[in-house]
Amino acid sequence: MTELLPNYFGGQWSHGTGTGSTLVDPVLGTPLVRVDATGLDLAAGFAFARDTGGAALRALNYRERAALLGAAVKVLQANRDAYYEIATANSGTVKNDSAVDIDGGIFTLGTYAKLGESLGERHHLVDADMVRLGKDPLFQSQHVLVPTRGVALLINAFNFPSWGLWEKAAPALLSGVPVIVKPGTATAWLTQRMVQDVVNAGIFPPGALSIVCGSSAGLLDALQPLDVMSFTGSAETAHQVRLHAAVSQRSVRVNIEADSLNSAYLLPGEDASSAAFGLLVKEVAREMTVKSGQKCTAIRRVFVPEALYDAAAQAIGARLASTTVGNPRNESVRMGALVNRAQMTSVRQGLQQLQTQADTLYDGANTPLVDADPAIACCVGPTLLGARNADAADVVHAMEVFGPVATLLPYRSGTHALELIRRGQGSLVASIYGSDPQALADAALALADSHGRVHSISPDVAASQTGHGNVMPQSLHGGPGRAGGGEELGGLRALGFYHRRSAVQASTSVLSLLRTSDAAPTV
Amino acid sequence: MTELLPNYFGGQWSHGTGTGSTLVDPVLGTPLVRVDATGLDLAAGFAFARDTGGAALRALNYRERAALLGAAVKVLQANRDAYYEIATANSGTVKNDSAVDIDGGIFTLGTYAKLGESLGERHHLVDADMVRLGKDPLFQSQHVLVPTRGVALLINAFNFPSWGLWEKAAPALLSGVPVIVKPGTATAWLTQRMVQDVVNAGIFPPGALSIVCGSSAGLLDALQPLDVMSFTGSAETAHQVRLHAAVSQRSVRVNIEADSLNSAYLLPGEDASSAAFGLLVKEVAREMTVKSGQKCTAIRRVFVPEALYDAAAQAIGARLASTTVGNPRNESVRMGALVNRAQMTSVRQGLQQLQTQADTLYDGANTPLVDADPAIACCVGPTLLGARNADAADVVHAMEVFGPVATLLPYRSGTHALELIRRGQGSLVASIYGSDPQALADAALALADSHGRVHSISPDVAASQTGHGNVMPQSLHGGPGRAGGGEELGGLRALGFYHRRSAVQASTSVLSLLRTSDAAPTV
Repeated sequence: MTELLPNYFGGQWSHGTGTGSTLVDPVLGTPLVRVDATGLDLAAGFAFARDTGGAALRALNYRERAALLGAAVKVLQANRDAYYEIATANSGTVKNDSAVDIDGGIFTLGTYAKLGESLGERHHLVDADMVRLGKDPLFQSQHVLVPTRGVALLINAFNFPSWGLWEKAAPALLSGVPVIVKPGTATAWLTQRMVQDVVNAGIFPPGALSIVCGSSAGLLDALQPLDVMSFTGSAETAHQVRLHAAVSQRSVRVNIEADSLNSAYLLPGEDASSAAFGLLVKEVAREMTVKSGQKCTAIRRVFVPEALYDAAAQAIGARLASTTVGNPRNESVRMGALVNRAQMTSVRQGLQQLQTQADTLYDGANTPLVDADPAIACCVGPTLLGARNADAADVVHAMEVFGPVATLLPYRSGTHALELIRRGQGSLVASIYGSDPQALADAALALADSHGRVHSISPDVAASQTGHGNVMPQSLHGGPGRAGGGEELGGLRALGFYHRRSAVQASTSVLSLLRTSDAAPTV
Repeated sequence: MTELLPNYFGGQWSHGTGTGSTLVDPVLGTPLVRVDATGLDLAAGFAFARDTGGAALRALNYRERAALLGAAVKVLQANRDAYYEIATANSGTVKNDSAVDIDGGIFTLGTYAKLGESLGERHHLVDADMVRLGKDPLFQSQHVLVPTRGVALLINAFNFPSWGLWEKAAPALLSGVPVIVKPGTATAWLTQRMVQDVVNAGIFPPGALSIVCGSSAGLLDALQPLDVMSFTGSAETAHQVRLHAAVSQRSVRVNIEADSLNSAYLLPGEDASSAAFGLLVKEVAREMTVKSGQKCTAIRRVFVPEALYDAAAQAIGARLASTTVGNPRNESVRMGALVNRAQMTSVRQGLQQLQTQADTLYDGANTPLVDADPAIACCVGPTLLGARNADAADVVHAMEVFGPVATLLPYRSGTHALELIRRGQGSLVASIYGSDPQALADAALALADSHGRVHSISPDVAASQTGHGNVMPQSLHGGPGRAGGGEELGGLRALGFYHRRSAVQASTSVLSLLRTSDAAPTV
């Protein structure tokens, strides 16, 4: 049997008492390690995090907590090689794709270390100025933000075991809120190892950082009214989270990031020889293949003027044809594996459903694999679909296929394009390609209400743009409606989720003390 | 049969096709009017509001929409007398209590008219500065806030038919989001009349302001992913709201304000002769009796140093003894009725439950009624309970009795008091009474994480303070946990709920256009 990874919970390392789930190499099919959460005393572990971890974190100021994040960055950087090895083995990703997760996670953690430094030696945040409540200047209102007196339960998806961990944990810990991390089981190894390295370095106070690997059974039962929960995963599981009494009855604040049918949109007026057209083609091919399309931000729908449908199909197809697929250990390979057989089956079934309403413009089904056995490796080639009648292709606007798959859709006018994009009913990100600054600004504003992020690409930023699917910690991550309605990151905005806002109404002299106070809370 | 009030929905006045519910005078027992929503085409009405109303509102800028709010204020002021008559008849409230609702509502609407004026001739809001995404200054991130492309369903409680309407509708309409109002049935008349007056004045564009009176059946089914919903009512109904597919599956953004066990807290070190003691006593008696205690913000738990338990009981009891109860049409009456028999039964039953763990310090059960028949009028006298063992009184910290009832609780130390207050598991408001500015500031910060508002009273603000239970539009209204986890008002903060935040990543030139643009959206 493979090694059973320990959980860190209730201030101690402890193995689950069950057989556990085995994590598997998706390319070689070999078993790697096991995870299990059976037998943990959940109530006691949550209480330890909430009380001991919470009190210790709240006793530190923002700058001190930021310094802890900075210290964690150093530990992670020192162990980078081990993380890359785990990612290759457990996620089946090529080095560049592993970097998005590993270095992206460390970068995000480092960004919050820097942002936190700017908050100084305070224990609470002041929200805007005092406001008079009447004509008398003596009695006023001052809003403050204080860390919630609870624990943050962070449940992550399999596709970003590092970034998913740190993009959630960094704002929480900086806010002074202890975290309990439950990684996606299939790739829990990397999350577990990173937490283990940081815990063993003794950086955070006891109870501040815990990890439970394996089943999430019982975790939500342990949540109390002032706890918060951040979830990334499927719309189906998100639905179950919302139905749970912790959320529906105890008002646990929850942030959800679920399915998303992200769009790429070439503005009207661009032709096939334009720089904007070339930028869209390049970005679509990149987004389809990075991490084998297993990114919640990946482009799923590609909108081009109808006259450019064939040209776009050909240009994107040509790029996909040059993508080598297979064992990420082979340096000639550009795209590795899906995470496991279940995902591969799901992608193939989803593709079949899309194909009932879409043509196959570039078929990756028979892509030869490099250094990998097609009977074992969870590798699939990229496939571009297309639907000449974009209005009729219901499934394309409603079903996320979590793999290297996108659908090309022609539009008749700018208005028509916006209508079609909005049929995603709320997405994480749309990217826009064009050369006219005013048209780019107008389209961005028109799509802002249905997208948490609008990525607007013009030829002048071809070299400096950060990529449609890359989530920068400075920008909001999340989206309304189908995308779950969540808000993460966005720089210091992320701290809002882990704080409680309160309006203090008092004499101006009391409020002045409160504004300038940097004392630690006594109780 | 009494008059059946029409709904305004889908751009037209229409009567329900059922018999309807009869609204009753809670003092005289006479039937007043009927309301009914049977037979309305909900899908069509929601679509009309969302599409026609939404597009028309979004075509206006903030200043123009603010001007519409200002015009509505004038219409309401012109009809104030009629509103007071309706309140007396339907809510059974004395004039001062009706004012809290009627003038409080108009004041809140007027406040948003003024706040909106300051937002200028724009169609979207810029959220902070551009931020670089790398070393290159050419590609940056700019967050924007745009009105959600949906409808706001506003479901209100019976206790504030005017204020509940306007505190929700004002920020929504100012944001450019059409509203559909569903008032609490028992007192829907005042809401319906106010909407009728504003609609008949032709102030808002068609579809911007709709009202459905009677059953809420089917309303949530009509909600789509970009719609939002704001609910004030019981924790039980709030639970049902959260379980509904609109919220749990379609990610409709929801704001909930439910039960709350608000506290008044006399700081340690104050004695029975102190000004702070006197201020607490006065405020507790006032909060218990205003609107017969039917305020979600009313004081339910009163914390005093254990040495002052008897003195506080006596002083509060003495004030309650001078409260005349009965028919609000009699000028000697200070406290009118509960809203109906169902509420009176609920209050009596709740009182009995509290009495299993608390002593009755001042008993209002046998208060003689002025000008009212005890067999008909829904009038109850104020009752002060007390539990010498505050730790053991579970029910007192967990059950909201929505009437003129509060419980006195002694504490041993400041730490003990904070622990007891927090057993409310999240409340709308706590008030603190003391004379030391530093102690007041510290206590306010300690309670900020479990209260949406902390009202801090020192002798210097005795005359200018705005009252524990009065919700000022400048300050946040809502509370975590048991209180529902919502956030309303707080000045312009309220607009956030009706906007979508999006990070636009683009060339600096595109973002500069977007920052300064005041053009109306074309699609």
